[in-house]
Amino acid sequence: MGKRADTPTANFDLIQQAMKKDARSDDITRLLAQLGDDCLDFLRDAEQKAARSLVLNKHYFTFVVRGNHSRAVNEDLFANWQLIHRFLNAVRTRRILDLSSDAITRACYTLVMSLACTVDLVNKGDQQTPGTFYEYLVTHLLTRSLDCERSQRVRVRIGEDEVPLTMDLVLDLGKGRRKYNVAVKNSTRERASEIWAHQRILDQAATDKYIGLFFGLAETKLDKRKLEVIEICVPEQWRAYQQYIATLSGVYYLDPPDAYLRLNEKQPSIRVRPFGAFFSDFLAR
Amino acid sequence: MGKRADTPTANFDLIQQAMKKDARSDDITRLLAQLGDDCLDFLRDAEQKAARSLVLNKHYFTFVVRGNHSRAVNEDLFANWQLIHRFLNAVRTRRILDLSSDAITRACYTLVMSLACTVDLVNKGDQQTPGTFYEYLVTHLLTRSLDCERSQRVRVRIGEDEVPLTMDLVLDLGKGRRKYNVAVKNSTRERASEIWAHQRILDQAATDKYIGLFFGLAETKLDKRKLEVIEICVPEQWRAYQQYIATLSGVYYLDPPDAYLRLNEKQPSIRVRPFGAFFSDFLAR
Repeated sequence: MGKRADTPTANFDLIQQAMKKDARSDDITRLLAQLGDDCLDFLRDAEQKAARSLVLNKHYFTFVVRGNHSRAVNEDLFANWQLIHRFLNAVRTRRILDLSSDAITRACYTLVMSLACTVDLVNKGDQQTPGTFYEYLVTHLLTRSLDCERSQRVRVRIGEDEVPLTMDLVLDLGKGRRKYNVAVKNSTRERASEIWAHQRILDQAATDKYIGLFFGLAETKLDKRKLEVIEICVPEQWRAYQQYIATLSGVYYLDPPDAYLRLNEKQPSIRVRPFGAFFSDFLAR
Repeated sequence: MGKRADTPTANFDLIQQAMKKDARSDDITRLLAQLGDDCLDFLRDAEQKAARSLVLNKHYFTFVVRGNHSRAVNEDLFANWQLIHRFLNAVRTRRILDLSSDAITRACYTLVMSLACTVDLVNKGDQQTPGTFYEYLVTHLLTRSLDCERSQRVRVRIGEDEVPLTMDLVLDLGKGRRKYNVAVKNSTRERASEIWAHQRILDQAATDKYIGLFFGLAETKLDKRKLEVIEICVPEQWRAYQQYIATLSGVYYLDPPDAYLRLNEKQPSIRVRPFGAFFSDFLAR
């Protein structure tokens, strides 16, 4: 499985096809490993240039190829193919919890960012592929570890009509068991309200109760001229959403912004955690 | 007032400065006329090329300069400088209601689109200037015709704290009179939920009652390769927002999509109207 790449992102298309068949399949686990290898191979030849981080206690660099810059990469989270393989082996054998939360976070960060940076450099301006890829990764990991199918549609009643709502990812663990409404986005910037709004509609209109989760990548923004990295966060707006729109049960970030991590201690509390913590939070051993 | 343009959008910067002082000022009315003239002058030298409209009963063209295309322009709504001047004269003398709703809509459409198309052609990829300009126009017209100041901040209580929320435009007509929460966006695509989410927070958390309004430009998207125009609308999602999140009192579009106009007849009803209808809907003669 997996073809040796003409372009480093060639296996992305195969993952896309495989996702349509079964988001849980072993094929996808294998293709993810191959895609990670191809992207890391490609990035090995790129220059790594330190960026000026305006984010406290975080250090970023950018990959440079012929004057083009990738997005900003967190030095402490970007690991190597060995960690990706160790993680995907655990996914394959359904033993994710053998890895620490920190190792899971770094493995997934490396996988997602190696694809995203490669796309930044070979297909400048394409925001969609990195976003879709993160959605695929989360969908694969969650359907596989919770052992369920996924859907993207929920039907809700409005007066006499029943209308379909499109969500990022809906998981139904079966009769009498949990249901999840999962938003997946590379970044939210000022647009996070949609996540709470959709959760509210489900709370109000669906017969079943859905647990609301959000998976984010990062909230960094790189100024390519000055090579400066900032984080764009609106924690006070998030508090208003959690208080007045709906309740999210958990927010998981590959590169969690401190401004959001601090919401754990505020009222209303929002559980914001590193990505890898999801598995110990939600999977029974 | 108003400088003869080195670039056709030079007066935009002057409007920006004037907005900071007083959004209602006569200066801005005059600068808007000058900016409209400059942009229409610039576009006079551009080729107009018919686009293939996939939108029922609407015809679009695009301005072309040296192979670059502007966004899609609705033929029936794009008028001329005479109409813009007639409208802005009415704004200056505070007699907007002397014009028909249709004339107001076309005058404002022409003004906003002439700036937007000029920016598309002279500063490709700049989405911010056309968006900000529409916000300025709506802010000027509303503060002037309702005779009030504007703000962009509302403070809401969350537990023990009071936190600021940033809105597009908040109007307070004074003690005991109406307050408006106005969202202004060139297009919403799939991102309209924010408008309802913010309205809900105000409904829940503010001591005063705010009337929620949305002003949109259009929901068209031009495929520049095929020169095809489509509208991207999610009417079923809007119904869910209106039913389960908050109630908007009116939606006004310069180029209203049919899919949204039809929401007037659905349950829950959403009042979607052409831009110019706002003034007869909300201003007493």
